[in-house]
Amino acid sequence: MKHIISVLVQNKFGVLSRVANLFSASVGETQDHSISRMTIVVEGDDPILEQINKQLNKLVDVIKVVDFEGGEFVDRELVLVKINVTSHTRPEIMQVVDIFRARIVNVRERHFTVEVTGTEGKINAFLDLMRPFGIKELARTGKVAMARA
Amino acid sequence: MKHIISVLVQNKFGVLSRVANLFSASVGETQDHSISRMTIVVEGDDPILEQINKQLNKLVDVIKVVDFEGGEFVDRELVLVKINVTSHTRPEIMQVVDIFRARIVNVRERHFTVEVTGTEGKINAFLDLMRPFGIKELARTGKVAMARA
Repeated sequence: MKHIISVLVQNKFGVLSRVANLFSASVGETQDHSISRMTIVVEGDDPILEQINKQLNKLVDVIKVVDFEGGEFVDRELVLVKINVTSHTRPEIMQVVDIFRARIVNVRERHFTVEVTGTEGKINAFLDLMRPFGIKELARTGKVAMARA
Repeated sequence: MKHIISVLVQNKFGVLSRVANLFSASVGETQDHSISRMTIVVEGDDPILEQINKQLNKLVDVIKVVDFEGGEFVDRELVLVKINVTSHTRPEIMQVVDIFRARIVNVRERHFTVEVTGTEGKINAFLDLMRPFGIKELARTGKVAMARA
């Protein structure tokens, strides 16, 4: 079972890396510049999750750990993807881009760079549709999440 | 001077944290699941940048270091932001959301959750306009970048 965990940490040198030692995660600023938020995606059952929570709460500079499991939340990720394009495939690619409310952010003769945002499922569906055209390059930000309430 | 550096690393436990020891960065998958891309933003002059490049290239599992400085690139970041809203401020907030091609992803009686993507400058401009309404929560993914060529 996949869990999304949001961790607020003091924005100090070393803290991020100590948490990153446990997982890979997206790290970004919050409304307070001295505090960063890491969003972590982990797969595991309840005992494993409990263990992770304990480990995180042990770190001195961790301010707050929120496991979104069970609660309602919005999660989003951004992906930049460079796709091979020919005069023949162009219309179809543009249609899919439109359906996914993605955006073409750069156009060259032989490729498009597309920005797509959404949940992991939406992004993977988009990438699956683009794969047959040829994906030249791909960069994902990692997830951020926010409680709906 | 701000530099955006893209680092491709083996997706192994510990590698990400060793790089994260040097900086904070966004980390995401690439088209190859065994390889992650870190996008790092550093401020510094040429000797500092040279030093950073050397340090990164020394790490065994670092595959490729690209400094976008000088080249043309697209850079993007995604931000989720929860904004206080009243019946009075709602129309103005929705106008700004529209102008910035942002998206309202969750609506409650007293707040909107908005997804906005763009360059750092665009996102900061959006947040500056939202600040007077009251930002309750903010989560940034960190940057990803891709060469235009």
